[in-house]
Formats: sequence, C-alpha cells, structure tokens
Amino acid sequence: MKLAVLAGGVGGARFVQALIEVVHPGDVTVIANVGDDLEVHGLHVSPDLDTLLYTLAGLGDEERGWGRASETWNARDTIERLGGETWFQLGDRDLGLHLVRTEALRRGEPLSAVTARIARAVGLGLPLLPATDDRLRTRIRTPAGEFEFQEWFVARGHRDPVDRVVYEGASEARPAPGVLEALEAAELIAIAPSNPFVSIGPILAVDEIRAAVERRRESVVAVSPLIGGRAVKGPADAMFQSLAGGTGAGQVTDCYKGLIDALVLDEADADDAREVAERGVRPLVTRTLMSEPDARAALVETVLGLVPAR
Amino acid sequence: MKLAVLAGGVGGARFVQALIEVVHPGDVTVIANVGDDLEVHGLHVSPDLDTLLYTLAGLGDEERGWGRASETWNARDTIERLGGETWFQLGDRDLGLHLVRTEALRRGEPLSAVTARIARAVGLGLPLLPATDDRLRTRIRTPAGEFEFQEWFVARGHRDPVDRVVYEGASEARPAPGVLEALEAAELIAIAPSNPFVSIGPILAVDEIRAAVERRRESVVAVSPLIGGRAVKGPADAMFQSLAGGTGAGQVTDCYKGLIDALVLDEADADDAREVAERGVRPLVTRTLMSEPDARAALVETVLGLVPAR
Repeated sequence: MKLAVLAGGVGGARFVQALIEVVHPGDVTVIANVGDDLEVHGLHVSPDLDTLLYTLAGLGDEERGWGRASETWNARDTIERLGGETWFQLGDRDLGLHLVRTEALRRGEPLSAVTARIARAVGLGLPLLPATDDRLRTRIRTPAGEFEFQEWFVARGHRDPVDRVVYEGASEARPAPGVLEALEAAELIAIAPSNPFVSIGPILAVDEIRAAVERRRESVVAVSPLIGGRAVKGPADAMFQSLAGGTGAGQVTDCYKGLIDALVLDEADADDAREVAERGVRPLVTRTLMSEPDARAALVETVLGLVPAR
Repeated sequence: MKLAVLAGGVGGARFVQALIEVVHPGDVTVIANVGDDLEVHGLHVSPDLDTLLYTLAGLGDEERGWGRASETWNARDTIERLGGETWFQLGDRDLGLHLVRTEALRRGEPLSAVTARIARAVGLGLPLLPATDDRLRTRIRTPAGEFEFQEWFVARGHRDPVDRVVYEGASEARPAPGVLEALEAAELIAIAPSNPFVSIGPILAVDEIRAAVERRRESVVAVSPLIGGRAVKGPADAMFQSLAGGTGAGQVTDCYKGLIDALVLDEADADDAREVAERGVRPLVTRTLMSEPDARAALVETVLGLVPAR
C-alpha cells in the first residue's frame, strides 16, 4: 500500500514512526513543512525536515524531541562567549548537516535534492520531501508585531497571542519534485496530528498541493492534534482558541474544509463526533496519544483501516 | 616600549608568546597575515589570525599547534557522513568563531572590527590586527597548476614544488585601521620567524604596509625562520630552495631586502653571518628554537636589545 503523509516536526515524526512500525517505510512518502525554516548564523535550518529526518533515521534525541542524540554544544558555547545570538540552539552534530545543506543550496542545489542526498547518507528508508523548494515562510501576526515563525515560537516562547498566520511566498511556491506524484499515487493521504496553522497550513498554502489534496479528498484522513481540547505539545490549543474560536474537533475539521474524508479524534473528544459529522466528515474515534504503545497501535489501525481493500 | 610584530600563524604566535613573557601585552601590536584565509562550507576562516588568537588567549591546542584545546569534532563527523568535504578540519569550538565572524562579515563589518570584538570577548590582552580588511589571497603556482594556499598546503600536503607565490588582491588592498599607526608608533618592528613567502609576504604585499616598514627600516628586525637551513615546521625550507635558490641566512635576508636593519639567526647558521652583513644587514646570532625556554629567552633578549634606550 502507498501512503502519503503531510507532516510537521515532532507530531509528524511520531506519527510516521508509528505508521512504519506496520507499513514498509519505502511505501510512505512524507511531505514536510518548510514554513518554519530560518537562517541561523547564515545557515539554512529546516527544523521540521530535520526533526523528521533525525527521528525516522533513529538519530534523534527522543527525550528532547528535536536535534540529535548524544549531541554536544561546543560551537554554541563559543558563539555565546563571543557575544553571538544563541536563542536558536544548534548542536555540533546538527551544525554539520546545516553546513552541508547551506553549501549545497548556495551552489544552486534544490532543497529537495539535498534532502534526498542527506536522507540516503543517513540510511533513511523512506522518501522525505519538502513541500516546496521555493522560499515559503510562516509569519505570525501578534499585537506585539509580526514575527518570523521561529522568532515567535522559540525566541519569544510563543507568548504573544496570534492574530493571524501568514504564509509568505506561498502564492509563488511550486510543489517540490515528487510531491504531486506522491499525492496522486497514494492509496491514502494522511494529515499528521501536527499543528494545522503552522505545520500543515504552510504545506496546503501551496496552491497545487491544496488542489491535489482536494482532488483526492475521498482518500484523505486527518488526525486531530488535540486531545481533550489540549495540544500534546506546543501552542496548537492556544492558536485554535484565537484563530478558530475553540478547541473542539469541529474546529479541527474546519481547518481542513473540503480537503478530508475522515477525521481521527481521541476518545476524550468523542462528544465532538457529531460536530465533525455535521461538517460532512466521518469522525473516527480512537486513542491518539502516540507516547502510549496501545494508543499508537489503535491510531495506526484506524488510519490504515481507511486504505481501500485491493 | 611599543612593539609591532608582523606575524603568520604558529611561528608568529610562539614568537609573540615569548615576547609577552617580558613585555606588557598591551604594548605589542600584532599585524597578522590573512593571505591564507579561505571559505570552508561557506564560512570565512582566517587560520593565522585564529592561531594567534587562540595561542595568545590561552585557548589553543599547544600540541597540535592549531585550533582549540579540548576540541570536539562532531560537526566534522556529520559532514563526513553526509558526504561533505572535510580536508580542512574545523572543530566544534572553532566553528563557533567562524559562524560569528562570517555572519558579521556578511553584515558588512570589517574583518578588523570583528577580530577586535572577538579578541575582547576572549580576553586577549593585545591588539591583534589583520594586515588588511580587503580580500588578499595567497595562491601557489606549481607544475600541477595554481592552487589557493590552503588547498596546496593542507589538501595537497604541500607536496607540489612551488614555482611562484602570487598575492591576489594585494595591489588593491589597503592596510586595516591601526596598522600604519602601529608601524609608525613602534619603537621596534619585529618580523616573526614565520614563512617569508606565504606568511610575511602577503602582509608586505600591501603597498602601504611595505612603504611604512621601509620608512622605519632602521627599527626593523627579522627573525630567521630557518635553523641550520631547516624549517622548524612547515614547508619554508623547500620554498627557500625553489624560490630563493638556497636555505642560508643570506637568502632570508634577501626576502626582506631594503626593509630590515638586523636579522636574528640561529647559532647553527652562524657561518652565514658574513653573507647577511654583506647585504647591509646586521646579523645577530643567538639561539632561536622557541620550544626551548633558554633559547626563547635568549631570542627575546636579542630582539628587545634593539629597542633604543630612552
């Protein structure tokens, strides 16, 4: 069976990790958010791509949830001593990747090509595609001003309420090579339980990707990132509150209006099933907390249950 | 007393280190070679400036002679794993400096300004100036082709015989702020026992620096980098052979024609004293091997003996 997954960082990585416990990794194409990419000390950093890469290649720091395992921080310590900015932390092993990638991008290699090369080098068993090779950046409008995503998220600790999320460059962005083909070929397209506004939103802000998902609507399932109206991690619940007016499964469904056939929601949100159904989307209630092995298995079973029988 | 020292990397650093065992560091301005600067993975690396900085700030790896003490190599290991080039080795602590410097240069900060900032941050007690803020690159012509200095030196292990040394950009290069002032104010200008062709040559290739040294000729002393016709480290002897036709103190003197009043040479080369004197330069014979405390003291005493009494 062929799957395509739209994914952000941590939530996306854990979801794909769960999937490939059951499905052959080579059959799962991951289409990753690049809206939170940024330049740090002149290096191109792709936090979501890297979290996916590290986690799925078994190189990630499981506890921290980002960056490399057995990481050291000597470059950062030097930068700090020399008075440089260290709000976005780059470990030494991590830096090696950013150096290789940035050099390749400066030479004119597309992000998708260098990502594929790096993925091969670390033995990643599945196709990992950036949504686009073009510049697409998520910006956050708040009462305190507009910020680059990571500036708002990391430097300011996502403390500013979000008035609006803007996907800069999205209207000119084209899907990276392989993205449309993967969406077309997939028997099932899954939207990972990532933040719909800042992880999945930038992917779907690419017109041709949105149109391709729309065309495949009957084969698209999203997993709600909320459990009992709360985000497992990160600011999704606060963003739902301010941007969608609530944290119910109905609001999650609204984020994917016209794009999905089914929404997987947690048992804690079972009461919201009717609201989902009223929006023309099939509610699938199960356990969704991926840190619990039973729940992870149940979630994967539910999602894979949507793959049409041959 | 005010001193100015023209210096390359390792030899220059050891010489200045010896000087400041006796002279107050604040009275020694170091004017450093930048001809072997290079871009590594898009980062601006200044090997000689950094060797001087690390050594004189007590951060250097004494045994290796370059780079930081207690260094780790995790970024390099990643780069290697990802198929990137690792012929020019960058340690993790070292990388932090290159990131800070490169970012500053891209913002338009001159090399001298960022060097001063970094020197202050690590508590370096003496003024460390790049010879120039402009692009000046030493290139090595060999029978196998022309190479950037580090490519010839590190990547090819300086195995190719040298037909000619070229200082690209020298004719347009201006002295960095403070360089001419330091040469003017110095009671003694010392040329460190660095390689005359690739360490001191690029500094003197800047017209205004050469002219300033020429004007102060009566107060300029050079220390020969050769002991018994051999370089303590590096390819200086082979270069003397091919570029100057021999490895005697006479040939060393010729490198600084019209620029020096005295040449310090090692006891092992005492027989060459007449050749030096015949060239109108005072030969000062002493012990010059800086790894030996006695010789180091004798060398410093000899050099400082040239400072005019007040």
